[in-house]
Amino acid sequence: MTSKRYLIIGGVAGGMSVATRLRRLDEHAQITVLERGGHVSFANCGLPYHLGGVIEERSSLLLQTPESLRSRFDLDVRVRTEAVAIDRAARTVTARDLTTGEQTVLPFDALVLSPGSVPIRPPMPGGERMLSLWNIDDLDAAMSRLEAKPRTALVIGAGFIGLEMVENLAHRGIDVALVELADQVLPPVDPEMAGPVAQRLIDRGVDVRLGTEVVEIGPGSAMLDDGSVVAAEFVLGSVGVRPETGLARAAGLELGERGGIRVDDRLRTSDPHIWAIGDAVEKVDAITGEHRLIALAGLANRHGRLAADAITGRDIRVRDALGTAVVGVMGLTVAATGWNEKLLRSRGRDIRVLHTHPASHTGYYPGAETMSLKLLVDAETDLILGVQGVGGDGVDKRIDVIATAMAGGITASELAELELAYAPQYSSAKDPVNMLGYVAMNAADGLTPSIQWHEVDRAVEAGATVLDIRTAGEVDEGAVPGSLRIPLDELRDRLDELPEGRLVVHCKVGQRGHTAVRLLAQHGRDAVNLDGGYLTWRAGID
Amino acid sequence: MTSKRYLIIGGVAGGMSVATRLRRLDEHAQITVLERGGHVSFANCGLPYHLGGVIEERSSLLLQTPESLRSRFDLDVRVRTEAVAIDRAARTVTARDLTTGEQTVLPFDALVLSPGSVPIRPPMPGGERMLSLWNIDDLDAAMSRLEAKPRTALVIGAGFIGLEMVENLAHRGIDVALVELADQVLPPVDPEMAGPVAQRLIDRGVDVRLGTEVVEIGPGSAMLDDGSVVAAEFVLGSVGVRPETGLARAAGLELGERGGIRVDDRLRTSDPHIWAIGDAVEKVDAITGEHRLIALAGLANRHGRLAADAITGRDIRVRDALGTAVVGVMGLTVAATGWNEKLLRSRGRDIRVLHTHPASHTGYYPGAETMSLKLLVDAETDLILGVQGVGGDGVDKRIDVIATAMAGGITASELAELELAYAPQYSSAKDPVNMLGYVAMNAADGLTPSIQWHEVDRAVEAGATVLDIRTAGEVDEGAVPGSLRIPLDELRDRLDELPEGRLVVHCKVGQRGHTAVRLLAQHGRDAVNLDGGYLTWRAGID
Ligand SMILES: Cc1cc2nc3c(=O)[nH]c(=O)nc-3n(C[C@H](O)[C@H](O)[C@H](O)COP(=O)(O)OP(=O)(O)OC[C@H]3O[C@@H](n4cnc5c(N)ncnc54)[C@H](O)[C@@H]3O)c2cc1C
Ligand SMILES: Cc1cc2nc3c(=O)[nH]c(=O)nc-3n(C[C@H](O)[C@H](O)[C@H](O)COP(=O)(O)OP(=O)(O)OC[C@H]3O[C@@H](n4cnc5c(N)ncnc54)[C@H](O)[C@@H]3O)c2cc1C
Ligand SMILES: CC(C)(COP(=O)(O)OP(=O)(O)OC[C@H]1O[C@@H](n2cnc3c(N)ncnc32)[C@H](O)[C@@H]1OP(=O)(O)O)[C@@H](O)C(=O)NCCC(=O)NCCS
Ligand SMILES: CC(C)(COP(=O)(O)OP(=O)(O)OC[C@H]1O[C@@H](n2cnc3c(N)ncnc32)[C@H](O)[C@@H]1OP(=O)(O)O)[C@@H](O)C(=O)NCCC(=O)NCCS
Repeated sequence: MTSKRYLIIGGVAGGMSVATRLRRLDEHAQITVLERGGHVSFANCGLPYHLGGVIEERSSLLLQTPESLRSRFDLDVRVRTEAVAIDRAARTVTARDLTTGEQTVLPFDALVLSPGSVPIRPPMPGGERMLSLWNIDDLDAAMSRLEAKPRTALVIGAGFIGLEMVENLAHRGIDVALVELADQVLPPVDPEMAGPVAQRLIDRGVDVRLGTEVVEIGPGSAMLDDGSVVAAEFVLGSVGVRPETGLARAAGLELGERGGIRVDDRLRTSDPHIWAIGDAVEKVDAITGEHRLIALAGLANRHGRLAADAITGRDIRVRDALGTAVVGVMGLTVAATGWNEKLLRSRGRDIRVLHTHPASHTGYYPGAETMSLKLLVDAETDLILGVQGVGGDGVDKRIDVIATAMAGGITASELAELELAYAPQYSSAKDPVNMLGYVAMNAADGLTPSIQWHEVDRAVEAGATVLDIRTAGEVDEGAVPGSLRIPLDELRDRLDELPEGRLVVHCKVGQRGHTAVRLLAQHGRDAVNLDGGYLTWRAGID
Repeated sequence: MTSKRYLIIGGVAGGMSVATRLRRLDEHAQITVLERGGHVSFANCGLPYHLGGVIEERSSLLLQTPESLRSRFDLDVRVRTEAVAIDRAARTVTARDLTTGEQTVLPFDALVLSPGSVPIRPPMPGGERMLSLWNIDDLDAAMSRLEAKPRTALVIGAGFIGLEMVENLAHRGIDVALVELADQVLPPVDPEMAGPVAQRLIDRGVDVRLGTEVVEIGPGSAMLDDGSVVAAEFVLGSVGVRPETGLARAAGLELGERGGIRVDDRLRTSDPHIWAIGDAVEKVDAITGEHRLIALAGLANRHGRLAADAITGRDIRVRDALGTAVVGVMGLTVAATGWNEKLLRSRGRDIRVLHTHPASHTGYYPGAETMSLKLLVDAETDLILGVQGVGGDGVDKRIDVIATAMAGGITASELAELELAYAPQYSSAKDPVNMLGYVAMNAADGLTPSIQWHEVDRAVEAGATVLDIRTAGEVDEGAVPGSLRIPLDELRDRLDELPEGRLVVHCKVGQRGHTAVRLLAQHGRDAVNLDGGYLTWRAGID
């Protein structure tokens, strides 16, 4: 029996996960990993935090080295070696040693592509001064620029990674400007959820410029499309990535409409001897069934393991992807999975939208923090289409629980009955996830009709009255203009003070509003609850 | 149309949840709540923390008062009023005002029982000095005893609530002794998971006495069944509760074998006009389908809401219960759901058991803490039967995710593909839950056979060799006696040093052991992995 020859292109998240699992499945195979860069198995996701000094040692980002992978897994790992061509007929790959220029032709029985993605660099005058942060070489370049102790920095792009860059540069004491083309930070979440994140950045001194583009980078500053200039001794770009598909394209492998490598549900490309995983590959979206690009380490790692299983003849199936993501921003946690409202509406999906602002744990136990949750529900099936969370402690927990519910086909209403761990410092007897279930159920039943923050103006124009049922103290902190004020606890006795017509009821978060709407409806009134209450309305209109 | 008369016995977790939801569903009903104690709607679960001074204000435990419930929900709440008899034929309840002794007969269209449970007080000489902590009156009694500034305290019973009592008394600077009849703390989890919790208590100065019973309480001390005496100026008991079923029994309602009120899956008792919820009621166990007593606030609250729905004619079904619970103990979090190994083995269930010790988040980001997880899997169906977690940050998250997976029918192996939120400070690219999925899959596939900590001695007696593949530095911190030591990274080159026969391989947590077993198996060796590695073995034998 001759041993199998497995060849892997790309030696980080996806590629190295294939290699190690392959070794555990086949001790006698020849496993070779080609990596263009100088390092394999490094923590891409940790790069921003070393930049900021939070992760102190560069070496702690290097999880494995070619030597450690040799001794533990008997892998032939070749760094600074680029795969330059695939000969599908001959089943070989040509590898070039980037140090010596020497080329080698490597035969394979199975080939895995995990070449990742490359940062997009919008062309502009001075654009060469814009750094990226995608691998260890990038990190080293950025760290050496930081030795000059810049006092100002510009980050272009307010996505998840862009915000990590902002946080980390600010952590170094640098004055940071953030420029984003969209009119909100974190485009993957909806604007009323992103608003408080932008506010947090501003509160911490970041110069946040939304709906703006950088048009030129000068020696110590940058010019924006509105003509303004921001100081920028240090410039970091994070405006997205595109799949690294050059090799695959040249080899004639099928690509998809989103520009990624096409694979089947066993991670096989259009060539039966070639598999592909990671950022370079299109995933099937769990909500729409369409192909989509998702650049996340968890998927790359897990699909790496699955690819090894597939190659060695195990019967695997790749699950459609939700794209669960999380980021920490100056003490806030922002997490999301599935689709957002913008996307769902743009597809004309019939959805129910709900916002809550629960406490991370019981209010009577010290340290509870308010979070904001948003659930998107299919109006017909009650299935969960997406969820977003912003807050402090416990946001990641709730998003993970709901991502799991989505994977298990648990409907929005069924969230109500999940048995989640409760003691006063961890949750509430009705966990925020249960509470979302209740709100979803009340919406599905039509028990409490609600309207969204962006629908209030239209309702008022159509003759509705906004009824604010908060206490006087709460109203002092700000209110919807023109609202009538009757605290909930007085409402039953003051029904005769209400004007005719539709009532848009609101409290701070929506909870008391629900009780008020039920009360009013049973007294014959046409009342709707402002979903998410004053907090969501405020975040939306700001 | 005459308005409905709804009568509720018990005005705290379950009872008040029925009342408020009933009001939202029926604005015009007469809703009366009878409560024997002096307070309704209080935070039972917060009692230990006010005792310890963590929750400073007693008033913050009183979430609602009869007045606030009147103004917001138009409820007729009668405290210090005991329901003393139910006349099912007449559909009335006799209520006694405990202050005046006056009796009133209250008619009902629907009656809900949520009388809770009562602490068990084992009879013993001096037993009257043992306090309980079950309601506000108990709390007031305990607080007034603490005014004498006792320096020593005894807590009897090391369940979830007992440990909260220990923590809180210690937090006040009192020297605490803890006596537990079982030979471990936290009997709901398995001994090797509970061991580190007991150790934490000991490290923080608690005098932990396991497998011991208090036989007599003296004026400032207590005597144990081993003849020893512990100082005990203050004595608190927490040895379990029994359902409060006196009224139900007297009324001839059906009770179950576990001594609780029997209800159907719509929470209706054997009388069609009477519903029951909360601690007093038997739940159907989700794992076995048997009836079981589970005293948890989440179930009481949520079933309260469901009962209101049922009474007003909504079509509800109660889910079988898992019994998810969590407790914080001196910086550790202990959480669990489903069944434990002891119970499953006692029923002869064919199970797979797995232990892991993952980090709460990536090791390279500061602040990661090691946790211990234990998963119990049905050997035939791969369904999850239970999970336990002990550690710091993120334990509650993983238990909640797995409880949700269980509710969704996600199998142990399918945990591998859950898309959980990952960034370096929140998780790992393969979350601990994913990792449990991998380990479960490898066990199900027979890829890496494992043995449990308590099976090592037997294996060695049968001729196996324990092979320790940790590094020299790790071995210095303690090792399995008689083990052969070859670090994993040298194993492939030193295969000829291995003795014949079975090899019980172990590393620190099981992860490297898995790679080693795969290596050895493919070199023709009979190797098994010590599940959970040295850490689980150590926790088990201690
Ligand atoms: C700064 C930063 C922060 C991130 N934070 C997170 C996070 O918090 N959470 C999260 O889920 N994801 C995060 N990600 C994304 C995550 O790192 C990627 O999704 C993941 O690494 C993709 O894995 P991959 O194997 O597809 O590609 P990579 O891990 O990028 O590996 C691809 C490798 O292939 C090599 N290569 C390409 N072409 C060739 C060739 N022809 N020959 C040889 N080698 C080649 C490249 O040099 C590269 O090293 C972050 C990424 C970055 C850069
Ligand atoms: C100290 C402590 C800590 C706890 N911690 C947690 C925790 O962290 N997590 C968790 O999930 N659970 C916890 N629990 C358990 C939780 O509080 C109970 O499961 C829950 O309160 C049960 O709700 P219930 O409505 O059945 O009973 P209860 O909330 O106890 O209410 C029953 C009420 O009925 C009244 N009553 C009884 N008989 C009559 C009668 N004949 N007439 C009038 N009134 C009557 C009683 O006076 C009592 O007030 C804790 C309990 C305690 C005591
Ligand atoms: C680390 C890396 C080399 C993969 O190594 P690996 O050995 O396959 O994976 P891990 O270290 O995650 O360990 C997982 C294995 O240990 C097993 N395992 C984990 N805990 C275990 C335990 N307690 N008992 C038994 N087995 C255990 C798992 O089952 C799995 O083995 P399997 O795939 O055969 O089922 C690769 O993921 C990598 O290079 N990562 C760095 C780059 C990266 O991921 N970047 C993006 C994120 S920053
Ligand atoms: C508090 C208590 C009186 C119940 O009051 P309640 O109004 O029914 O319940 P909550 O305050 O939890 O609010 C839940 C309601 O608000 C709704 N709600 C919550 N957030 C909302 C939001 N953002 N928008 C709209 N509705 C919301 C829920 O849907 C639910 O209404 P529903 O039951 O009609 O669906 C009762 O649980 C109690 O007495 N608790 C204290 C005792 C106790 O639980 N002890 C044990 C734990 S320590």
